[in-house]
Amino acid sequence: MRRFLSGKYASLVPYVPGEQPRNIQNLIKLNTNESPFAPPESVARAAARAAERLNLYCDTEARALCEAYAELLGISPDELLPTNGSDEILYYAFLAYGDDTRPMAFPDITYGFYKVFADIARVPMRVIPLDSDFGIDYNDYMNIGANAVIANPNAPTGIAIPAQDIESILRANPDYMVIVDEAYADFGGESCVKLIRKYDNLLVTHTFSKSRSLAGARLGFGIGCKPRIDELKAVKNSINPYNVNSLTQAAGIAAIESNDYFMQKIAELNTIRDDCARELRAMGFTVLPSSTNFLFFGNGALAGDVLYSELRARGILVRHFQAPRITPFVRMSIGTRAQMEFVITNIRDILTRREGT
Amino acid sequence: MRRFLSGKYASLVPYVPGEQPRNIQNLIKLNTNESPFAPPESVARAAARAAERLNLYCDTEARALCEAYAELLGISPDELLPTNGSDEILYYAFLAYGDDTRPMAFPDITYGFYKVFADIARVPMRVIPLDSDFGIDYNDYMNIGANAVIANPNAPTGIAIPAQDIESILRANPDYMVIVDEAYADFGGESCVKLIRKYDNLLVTHTFSKSRSLAGARLGFGIGCKPRIDELKAVKNSINPYNVNSLTQAAGIAAIESNDYFMQKIAELNTIRDDCARELRAMGFTVLPSSTNFLFFGNGALAGDVLYSELRARGILVRHFQAPRITPFVRMSIGTRAQMEFVITNIRDILTRREGT
Repeated sequence: MRRFLSGKYASLVPYVPGEQPRNIQNLIKLNTNESPFAPPESVARAAARAAERLNLYCDTEARALCEAYAELLGISPDELLPTNGSDEILYYAFLAYGDDTRPMAFPDITYGFYKVFADIARVPMRVIPLDSDFGIDYNDYMNIGANAVIANPNAPTGIAIPAQDIESILRANPDYMVIVDEAYADFGGESCVKLIRKYDNLLVTHTFSKSRSLAGARLGFGIGCKPRIDELKAVKNSINPYNVNSLTQAAGIAAIESNDYFMQKIAELNTIRDDCARELRAMGFTVLPSSTNFLFFGNGALAGDVLYSELRARGILVRHFQAPRITPFVRMSIGTRAQMEFVITNIRDILTRREGT
Repeated sequence: MRRFLSGKYASLVPYVPGEQPRNIQNLIKLNTNESPFAPPESVARAAARAAERLNLYCDTEARALCEAYAELLGISPDELLPTNGSDEILYYAFLAYGDDTRPMAFPDITYGFYKVFADIARVPMRVIPLDSDFGIDYNDYMNIGANAVIANPNAPTGIAIPAQDIESILRANPDYMVIVDEAYADFGGESCVKLIRKYDNLLVTHTFSKSRSLAGARLGFGIGCKPRIDELKAVKNSINPYNVNSLTQAAGIAAIESNDYFMQKIAELNTIRDDCARELRAMGFTVLPSSTNFLFFGNGALAGDVLYSELRARGILVRHFQAPRITPFVRMSIGTRAQMEFVITNIRDILTRREGT
């Protein structure tokens, strides 16, 4: 099977995304941190309007989209690069800034795709363990002689660090890039976007897949000083100039115009999350402090994969990672109030039945 | 500016797509080979329906889309990999099959992105000149010790070669990939899709940007035997598993269901193209024989960049390539009957005025 494939990819192990079941009618899907809230109707209307002239190529610069998001963030459109999800900008960053002399450093427990990006971009990686509380200690990133990739808040732990910790990492590594993946920042993290003009080695990445209910539209952004964005644009224009299609550009603009809607949904979701965490703790679970739209929790008495399977049997899909240090945990996205009440009832039932045996 | 960028990309020259003017109200846009025909209404309806549940991720496998296109082509869904335009599958092919020991060979005059893909994927390239009639002579591709990339029909020349010429290349290079870019094949080329089970070194690429009026939706396909598609899927899943979003998957399915509409539009466009070519030849232009939705033509008496500029001044946007051997030519996409009559009138006027000076 490897007769044609370049030897450099002989042992490539692709990323395994959370299961996307084809039939989700009878399933509560809490495994990929999607928003339980559909986007506002204006998004569908904008996409339908864009669909009427799909015979024309999209704007390779996505200027209207950049102007809208730049205004919301209080930055310049030149400081933004829209991409086909934040996976695409992360891949470009690994490709542009990593090589044999410039490794990529990231935590042992974090977004599993960083390791895959390093492999496919053929960049050496340096894995830095989280501390014993599953937190990122910025002291572990001083003068590391490598680029750093920090998910803040981190996944699957859900734990955030303050922007000043990131600033310490930026200052300690002025000749290397610090890439801050803010996929979940809207749910409680402190954004580093305010630092892009202060540090030319900072790249922040955003996604509209979580807090903005656009997972299915695939929209991400790279955010940084203009010289960095220009470099990343050169990479993008060497791979896929028309990377964000007209439908997604239109949907993104409509979503930005509905910012208030999303802010309200974020507040609603955070309340559900905190209530849910309280219930789980009351049942004896360890629940890591979450600044995201998911909870990472476990119970020494109940293996993570067992809890995963028991929930799956009851139509509730969460995610379990078979990885060192975190096997006792599962990661559960926060759904609607009704969904989470159903989940809590089921977890309580699972615990009761196991105690009974 | 290059303080952080990896040295491997110090001299990267990105692809320059045809201009996408923001305001096209008063412009006849014939520079990027888009279809002048909007997709049928069912496409907009499908996109709008998909937009209602954008909070959920798209299907990473795009199974419904693959099933629909596989049925149309008479192949299996396992022999298809949908991508974010055909640029994405071409990039993956360069990445997967090219390396220092496996160069990429392609014509001197062809889709300008191949050179850029080779640069960004760091694959040596071997440039093989077209023959004196701007055709691809398959004899130049015998036992080349390299992968080959053949646009068939070729761009910007518009000239097609028969599938049996491609078969000769496939047979002569059994240990290397032959990538056949069929972006324009629907307008008169002979497709090699029928050969994917016969040759395990064949990858065909398709796009919905030209004959299917979906340039703005970005939908392409890699088509090959299952082992090749599986390899390319592994690369895709190491870069962007959710590469084709829900809106585009839905638009693509709707377009496939409207196949008859597109077949009729292709026939209509081919007639306009042939009439247009006849008029240009009558005016003394050399017009290469086109099997595509564009014409490549020139006139020894009128430099290509001058014709480009004169047309631009009259609100007609075509494309001129400042490249060896083809500077006398411009490439003009075929628009509607009314647009092409306007264009022909203007070209006649440009010639008359120049003769008058």
